[in-house]
Amino acid sequence: MPELRKDPVIGRWVIIATERAKRPDDFAGERGLRISKGFCPFCVGNEGKTPPEVYSVRESGEPNTPGWKVRVVPNKFPALVSEGETHRIKEGIYQHMNGVGRHEVIIETPEHTKFLYNMSSDEIKLVIETYRERYLALKKDKRLRYILIFKNYGSEAGASLSHSHSQIIATPIVPKRVSEELYGARNFFSKNNRCVFCSVIEREIGEGRRIVFRNKHFIAFTPYASRFPFEVWILPLRHSAFFEEINDKEIEALTEMFMFLFKRYYNVLNDPAYNFIIHTAPTQMSGKWPSIEFDYHWHIEVIPKLTRVAGFEWGTGFYINPMPPENASEFLRE
Amino acid sequence: MPELRKDPVIGRWVIIATERAKRPDDFAGERGLRISKGFCPFCVGNEGKTPPEVYSVRESGEPNTPGWKVRVVPNKFPALVSEGETHRIKEGIYQHMNGVGRHEVIIETPEHTKFLYNMSSDEIKLVIETYRERYLALKKDKRLRYILIFKNYGSEAGASLSHSHSQIIATPIVPKRVSEELYGARNFFSKNNRCVFCSVIEREIGEGRRIVFRNKHFIAFTPYASRFPFEVWILPLRHSAFFEEINDKEIEALTEMFMFLFKRYYNVLNDPAYNFIIHTAPTQMSGKWPSIEFDYHWHIEVIPKLTRVAGFEWGTGFYINPMPPENASEFLRE
Repeated sequence: MPELRKDPVIGRWVIIATERAKRPDDFAGERGLRISKGFCPFCVGNEGKTPPEVYSVRESGEPNTPGWKVRVVPNKFPALVSEGETHRIKEGIYQHMNGVGRHEVIIETPEHTKFLYNMSSDEIKLVIETYRERYLALKKDKRLRYILIFKNYGSEAGASLSHSHSQIIATPIVPKRVSEELYGARNFFSKNNRCVFCSVIEREIGEGRRIVFRNKHFIAFTPYASRFPFEVWILPLRHSAFFEEINDKEIEALTEMFMFLFKRYYNVLNDPAYNFIIHTAPTQMSGKWPSIEFDYHWHIEVIPKLTRVAGFEWGTGFYINPMPPENASEFLRE
Repeated sequence: MPELRKDPVIGRWVIIATERAKRPDDFAGERGLRISKGFCPFCVGNEGKTPPEVYSVRESGEPNTPGWKVRVVPNKFPALVSEGETHRIKEGIYQHMNGVGRHEVIIETPEHTKFLYNMSSDEIKLVIETYRERYLALKKDKRLRYILIFKNYGSEAGASLSHSHSQIIATPIVPKRVSEELYGARNFFSKNNRCVFCSVIEREIGEGRRIVFRNKHFIAFTPYASRFPFEVWILPLRHSAFFEEINDKEIEALTEMFMFLFKRYYNVLNDPAYNFIIHTAPTQMSGKWPSIEFDYHWHIEVIPKLTRVAGFEWGTGFYINPMPPENASEFLRE
């Protein structure tokens, strides 16, 4: 019998559709087919083909020349632009504002064939350190309310270039999805006097069967109400609302986590496309929401693109997941 | 400069990304490639290959034999099953319930090469009448709270069989997305003493430039805060919260609307994949929410699958749309 399950944070229901259950082999990846041929603007030597860099980690060389290990550039086709005011304009029932914000690309490696599944731990660590650096830099812009760090890997997940990269988009509004999580977490806290994510960690460690990987500072598990097959959430064990407060020891532990998980995805799911998203508290919130540091708990959601979002999901906001998370975690652990 | 726009019903923001603007030709469809070859369980003569029909419109013949024009069967791999109780079970922070509900497939035509873009008006009318019939039939099951009618067209939109069909899923819970709309509509009504959808209709008729098609009973337009290129909403001009109250004259007008719109999609966008979803009020609501008939207004949302939902959308619940709705409506009208 299929089972309806409710997410404890935002109250979203999913259908774990046992009648449609599948094995990992049923979700075909594209191993080896994801690496584009031809000209690549992110490759070393082509620095002139991107907008000028705003940050880099370098062994040598001037900005916008070779010698870099990680490079951050503005997106050439930005969703939001950096210049302008952020007043909301009302026109009757409709409301709009200038598309002001930031949109940056983090080029994770100079090499065209390096990815999270085959980078060294030093290389991955640099990427995570760069996330923190850029977060702290963008946080200074007081027009911006939210900074989203995410990765689209593979064309099915929305990547238009295969060269390994992540993105940062900073918005002048707190996004809907973020507010839902914040309100859900606040509700839970006010009822239980406890962080909902800390409670989830405790429950998952106690139950054990959805855990994928665990180290000194992080836990990865397939969430109880997984929307997608092989969805994984990575939570820091130390309660903190703010990703940017990650410390060096934790960056090392998160590096180990990434190395494990993305290798496992590659091997078990044959190089699937995926998105991951860092969920963290909004910036500029301290005055309005003093309890946010207790209510919220930053984390990373990783969602492989193995099924399609269709009419049912669009119409309901619910998801049909043909892979029980208890089975997914087993495949990923083994 | 990109523009942020807010949806007046649920308050969702979208980014109309002018820096990424595109023309219809940039969204390649698959005209003529969508029709599967080989065995099809939905074709006339193969009635034995589906679960037994629960409804059909027939010229002749017994149930589960040829002679039908529209045929409704339970989904062979249902997301929810019809037998069972619907108690919620709490286990600490997690909550689940039996996956009880209904999942039916409406086979819209016996012919493998007929679609909404090339069916006759009589054929389309039968499909819409069947939606109403099945809605009314499922509404009698008091365990169910919501009845979702939707269509996945094309594999990118989640269709696994090419033969023209729609689906009905009835759930024991009011979906998240539906609640958001209901609360948004209620809020608007309590502030303005008016239906938000009626206000949108008035505004769109006044402004004119986002209208795609209009007849005596319906209006189709590209919404102000469109999430996707060529997204279209179809609203009945007569205020009604309940799809199942559609009358025969309105079914005729909706048929004309479908014929226009899906032919235009086919021609302008080269046979794109799309989803459409009928948004209507929950069943069994009368006691709890007496004002729902004033607050809410049923409608249809049509979303072509031309862009990919990626990390930004997953992380924010916002959407980046590279096609301003004012341009999309012009392409669709011409």
